[in-house]
Amino acid sequence: MSPVTYDGVMARWQPGARERLVLAAVDLFTEQGYDATTVAQIAERAGVTKSTFFRHFSDKRELLVAGQETLSRLLAEGIAGAPASASPLEAVAAGLERASSEMGPMNRELGPRLKAAVAASTELQERDALKRVGLAAAMTAALVARGVPDPTAHLAAELGVLAFRRGFTRWSEGDRDDGKGLAHYALGALNDLRMATASLG
Amino acid sequence: MSPVTYDGVMARWQPGARERLVLAAVDLFTEQGYDATTVAQIAERAGVTKSTFFRHFSDKRELLVAGQETLSRLLAEGIAGAPASASPLEAVAAGLERASSEMGPMNRELGPRLKAAVAASTELQERDALKRVGLAAAMTAALVARGVPDPTAHLAAELGVLAFRRGFTRWSEGDRDDGKGLAHYALGALNDLRMATASLG
Repeated sequence: MSPVTYDGVMARWQPGARERLVLAAVDLFTEQGYDATTVAQIAERAGVTKSTFFRHFSDKRELLVAGQETLSRLLAEGIAGAPASASPLEAVAAGLERASSEMGPMNRELGPRLKAAVAASTELQERDALKRVGLAAAMTAALVARGVPDPTAHLAAELGVLAFRRGFTRWSEGDRDDGKGLAHYALGALNDLRMATASLG
Repeated sequence: MSPVTYDGVMARWQPGARERLVLAAVDLFTEQGYDATTVAQIAERAGVTKSTFFRHFSDKRELLVAGQETLSRLLAEGIAGAPASASPLEAVAAGLERASSEMGPMNRELGPRLKAAVAASTELQERDALKRVGLAAAMTAALVARGVPDPTAHLAAELGVLAFRRGFTRWSEGDRDDGKGLAHYALGALNDLRMATASLG
């Protein structure tokens, strides 16, 4: 199978080798499982050589972990950069905006495919769950560094993770021509959750 | 190493074969890793035969999963059994009480050991994260079945998971002679989180 799979995407943007490798890997994980997928197969599907794979990733595990580390860093940066007067949830919103600003067509394209891959694999479900916990920990630490007390920091971070995930799902499964970035959806989801705190009882 | 390790515990309660198998497994996972630990080693450490192991668990993976399924069921049962007039968080509190009522000395003893095992293993961290996500999903479903709308149901379930985990940590790391059950700590943690919603901003 050649990169022709990605024609629908390539009409709008040109994925580089790194992006093609990630898309190819996620599709192969869905089709045949994470364990059964080799670096050679990923490289072949992406239309690059194995040595190109290894210029971008040390192994197939890193291909999934790299995205999480970037995302954690961006969320924490946004929280750290919020004005000193920002409330905990305003700081979380700044984190979501910072992370969203780096999410482009590649991430939007990847969303539903990654969801399919995760649904098909216990191993990827575990990895995805650990990612969720890692993002919450990164946001909690960034909030605590701003002086937000525990358990407010934990709670605000959990709302941030829920908002990011819910916003990402709506963005990546929604209309590609809506002209809206991820931030629109993530901040909308955060606001929904903030409103919901009033009806917890 | 013989079951003598558990003497401090056995002075207060008598773990059966199943409990000894779980404690032995968790300690072996900490010492040498999950992958490197065999069913034969777990059985030997627990002072039982391999066939006793297989009367209780189909494999070493199930040894960890069984506890999660029971916990999810108990939380959901408690939520389902709460009075119709209960608020979302009152229903979550009923879930925490139901689950806590089944947690005895074995669980309290297991807490710090399991924490050590998880800290030492990426594989167990992934499994633990998936457990957390599974508990939240079970509570969300039980709340939705009561007519709690989304995203309130998601939010209340996340508070429930945070409260259970925080309460469990305080209970299992605290004074064994405090005469208090897990419910005291889990409900206290839930109340702290409820109060914290007021300072999210």
